[in-house]
Amino acid sequence: MNAAIRAVVRQADALGHEAWGIYRGYQGLLEGDLSPLPSRACANILQRGGTILQTARCPDFYNPALRATAADNLRAAGIEALVVIGGDGSFRAAEVFQREQGVACAGIPGTIDNDLPGTERTLGFDTALNTAVEAIDRIRDTASSHGRLFLVEVMGRSSGMLAVHTALACGAEAVLYPESPDDSYENLVSRLNANWLRGKRSSIVVVAEGDIVGRAMAVGERLKRDHDLDLRVVVLGHIQRGGSPSAMDRIWGSRWGCEAVRRLDRGERGFYLGEVAGALVAQPLSRILEAQPLPPGDLGALISVLAR
Amino acid sequence: MNAAIRAVVRQADALGHEAWGIYRGYQGLLEGDLSPLPSRACANILQRGGTILQTARCPDFYNPALRATAADNLRAAGIEALVVIGGDGSFRAAEVFQREQGVACAGIPGTIDNDLPGTERTLGFDTALNTAVEAIDRIRDTASSHGRLFLVEVMGRSSGMLAVHTALACGAEAVLYPESPDDSYENLVSRLNANWLRGKRSSIVVVAEGDIVGRAMAVGERLKRDHDLDLRVVVLGHIQRGGSPSAMDRIWGSRWGCEAVRRLDRGERGFYLGEVAGALVAQPLSRILEAQPLPPGDLGALISVLAR
Amino acid sequence: MNAAIRAVVRQADALGHEAWGIYRGYQGLLEGDLSPLPSRACANILQRGGTILQTARCPDFYNPALRATAADNLRAAGIEALVVIGGDGSFRAAEVFQREQGVACAGIPGTIDNDLPGTERTLGFDTALNTAVEAIDRIRDTASSHGRLFLVEVMGRSSGMLAVHTALACGAEAVLYPESPDDSYENLVSRLNANWLRGKRSSIVVVAEGDIVGRAMAVGERLKRDHDLDLRVVVLGHIQRGGSPSAMDRIWGSRWGCEAVRRLDRGERGFYLGEVAGALVAQPLSRILEAQPLPPGDLGALISVLAR
Amino acid sequence: MNAAIRAVVRQADALGHEAWGIYRGYQGLLEGDLSPLPSRACANILQRGGTILQTARCPDFYNPALRATAADNLRAAGIEALVVIGGDGSFRAAEVFQREQGVACAGIPGTIDNDLPGTERTLGFDTALNTAVEAIDRIRDTASSHGRLFLVEVMGRSSGMLAVHTALACGAEAVLYPESPDDSYENLVSRLNANWLRGKRSSIVVVAEGDIVGRAMAVGERLKRDHDLDLRVVVLGHIQRGGSPSAMDRIWGSRWGCEAVRRLDRGERGFYLGEVAGALVAQPLSRILEAQPLPPGDLGALISVLAR
Repeated sequence: MNAAIRAVVRQADALGHEAWGIYRGYQGLLEGDLSPLPSRACANILQRGGTILQTARCPDFYNPALRATAADNLRAAGIEALVVIGGDGSFRAAEVFQREQGVACAGIPGTIDNDLPGTERTLGFDTALNTAVEAIDRIRDTASSHGRLFLVEVMGRSSGMLAVHTALACGAEAVLYPESPDDSYENLVSRLNANWLRGKRSSIVVVAEGDIVGRAMAVGERLKRDHDLDLRVVVLGHIQRGGSPSAMDRIWGSRWGCEAVRRLDRGERGFYLGEVAGALVAQPLSRILEAQPLPPGDLGALISVLAR
Repeated sequence: MNAAIRAVVRQADALGHEAWGIYRGYQGLLEGDLSPLPSRACANILQRGGTILQTARCPDFYNPALRATAADNLRAAGIEALVVIGGDGSFRAAEVFQREQGVACAGIPGTIDNDLPGTERTLGFDTALNTAVEAIDRIRDTASSHGRLFLVEVMGRSSGMLAVHTALACGAEAVLYPESPDDSYENLVSRLNANWLRGKRSSIVVVAEGDIVGRAMAVGERLKRDHDLDLRVVVLGHIQRGGSPSAMDRIWGSRWGCEAVRRLDRGERGFYLGEVAGALVAQPLSRILEAQPLPPGDLGALISVLAR
Repeated sequence: MNAAIRAVVRQADALGHEAWGIYRGYQGLLEGDLSPLPSRACANILQRGGTILQTARCPDFYNPALRATAADNLRAAGIEALVVIGGDGSFRAAEVFQREQGVACAGIPGTIDNDLPGTERTLGFDTALNTAVEAIDRIRDTASSHGRLFLVEVMGRSSGMLAVHTALACGAEAVLYPESPDDSYENLVSRLNANWLRGKRSSIVVVAEGDIVGRAMAVGERLKRDHDLDLRVVVLGHIQRGGSPSAMDRIWGSRWGCEAVRRLDRGERGFYLGEVAGALVAQPLSRILEAQPLPPGDLGALISVLAR
Repeated sequence: MNAAIRAVVRQADALGHEAWGIYRGYQGLLEGDLSPLPSRACANILQRGGTILQTARCPDFYNPALRATAADNLRAAGIEALVVIGGDGSFRAAEVFQREQGVACAGIPGTIDNDLPGTERTLGFDTALNTAVEAIDRIRDTASSHGRLFLVEVMGRSSGMLAVHTALACGAEAVLYPESPDDSYENLVSRLNANWLRGKRSSIVVVAEGDIVGRAMAVGERLKRDHDLDLRVVVLGHIQRGGSPSAMDRIWGSRWGCEAVRRLDRGERGFYLGEVAGALVAQPLSRILEAQPLPPGDLGALISVLAR
């Protein structure tokens, strides 16, 4: 996200605006925890994971009275527009905030889950994907050396995007994810049996957490009980977050940060940015209320072909 | 490239074909250095850089008589179709080979330069980009600690694609690349002066090799002579090649490998695969003879905004 | 371990011996799963994690009759000496095997736990340490961004070596490990309170698994219950294993592999190698039966100084 | 170096002293560019390459009058002791400075060259070694794929330490370094011929810069001219510096930083720290004037055994 913050600050500077940073998201907005963010404060942040502005959950933002306070805080500081970097929940809040309080808002997709409608990319996804793949490459060394089955749980909330991409990129033998027609325990067993017949003695199965953190452990317990398998479960968890961002995440963070400020400078408001068909696009924030995230498409089907 | 090789082999296997590997490209084809490549030989290659089939330049393939020998070698082995992974030169050779010898050919874009017409992605580009960015992140540590200017030369032949993406992702202060209207020594000097006035004492300038390997050294010599600057030149060179491929390179290698075999299996021939507007597409191999590679677009313009 | 295998093979070759590989450890020895391992088979394995010879647990080796079979398998193949790469259990088995069956044995310390008596280093420790530190660097990005406490469980069986080194290298606020006088829940609580008073809102606590995999989860549950903290637990687990070995692991694997063969070639037997006071040393295998592993020393005490 | 800075600051704080940071080394000391460095300023610096205090060459420090100014600057700020992190030159300057101006000085070895007398380790060496090895692992992918010879130049000034360790860890076929009896062009040619006869078609040769940056290029030119080899030269250069430090560099930086402050607090002065036989030791700064750096020992001899 630091790439997007840097781009917002420096594009604002280039257009003659002053950028402020709001700390800990909507929570800092409510508390008035905001201050000018000069261009030099963004030196050497591009390569750092996390966000220099920190982040926090903010249930209080559901309270209209407190949202009014937040708007007052912005006006008191002379701030005319808000760039929100986040996911589904952050965009919904921005949509309400602009509609209700009249503050111009722009959204930049930032979530490792890549589960936003209207964009094929979100900041953090490519980095998390590469991190998960590197971790599983290491696990595969052990799987191969020991002739063992590993179930690896990856993040993604209710989306299988991260799981399917990870599975394809690390050469997993199978993947379980919510959107899949084959997302069942029985299907997994028959897949593993087929591989076993072909002589494979080591296997990686990627399991999307699918709204239930720890799902891989439940699957693992059942497999051990039913089939007496020597298997291990690894929950990647927070290891997928953070870390120096990938080149593409930095590039799109930079592009979106600049574009958000340019559009706000031209008087546009209530939009969020995305990538559709390879191009940078803007869409109304209200779209987030009705549209569905993209499914992982037919990548899942490749995995059974490639795991021969 | 190993991701594509693995996908070709396993998709062929899934469709009931036998896959053979040809070693050292067209050179091995001429010499008859080819053998069956079973599915198991592709285990654990997905995460490895380079290619298990090796590669070589083959000037002899310009000789029509030797191309006839190559076709004979294929027919003798009962091989009906050829999947070529490579760049512009490899595709031109495949186009001639199919036209002249009647061997069905399919192309998969494989070059770190990302300089092929008709595709926004080539295998190896994303990996090389991330490798270059990591190297420059390290160089920036020294640049910051010493308050020094670094000129870093990246690969790309006559294309600025890799240079511009690298520069944007590593927060370079300037980039020199062939397609740029600002690709001049004078322009670079004025950019550096502007940064100096703003108080920046450390700078990274990315220089595309631009058909002249060592170009960064020439620029560096001139800057030292004219402006008495304490600068260093780093030529990334072959450090950008090799290494475990990025997730996206593995995914697209897998997708293209499967797709090439499916199309050949359906009787298609003389095509090469690519990514256009985010989608997997196929185009006639002959297109490579006439079309121009994509320019890096407006990414270059962002760099001066972001280097404030 | 591949560095050691390569060194054994090539040093044997240089001294005019033929090296054989035994697959899956003692299990392969029992089953006669062994074959000549030529020098070329060790090309390009130095940089790979895991072991090309695979590994397995082998409870059958406790059976003297089966150990006799194993010795017969070696003699049938004309093998005169055995190099065992492993930890405490593997060395005990080698000691019995040589004493009982008269097969010359040499040991090379290979375990990520660094818990062998008589050596300050074991193969895999430095790699696992760097891997754990990289993972926690990423977790710290999230901890800082969210102002959150993370408990991170690292491997090490009953030894705190890996935990203490990891904690010191990643700047953890506290570490729990078996050999520590402060290894208690109460102590951890008072340390966290002290940091909280100093204004630290994000913390990393490293927890040695300490013979109880999942210990960090139990500690986390108790902390949440007693203190209503917003904390997360990460179990690094198998992510610490595998991966391309660090330079020092490769160097010591190479040194020990050569030295083991040189000593066997000179007629020595029943020894294992190690590093003591920076030097390569050999000790009787029988020492493993009586001596205790080294404690992590006073590194743990530094952590509270540095976490200010 | 940031690990050592953090440890100095926090150990000083724990002992009731106030730590100040001096920017750009002796240059900042001359100019009075120094300020208090609070404990919190050292948060999250452990994982960062370079140094937050920056660095610079300072020829002016050879001038006794200016050294007196430097001492005045320290006294004016109420600073009683100086911790110098650096190499041979920095320690010589500290020795003169203490002897002449009476300022208590302590040295912490910080140079990637590992060429200081009286210590087997210097901060940055392990990190630079791992970085060089990773880069050469990538180059080997290309060397293997193309069947090509690569000459790779690594840093190290007049010491072969980094070159020999790198060569051993990356499985190089040969290494040229100043302390070697075989450090000759003729020897290299005969080594390469021997490998060629054994059928090796790809080779990595590591060349220590040996006081002549660009030495590998000269060797490469000569090899090409004399033997018509298809070879490539890569100068790793500044790519070896910077980057997130290895675990062991962080641990020793932390240990030395704490120890330096503890000894100064006890009234010791004029010493520098090191690692000898695995233990942390202190020696008089004056030793740097007379003793010789350690040679790389017999590691070089292993390389020809292992490159079979």
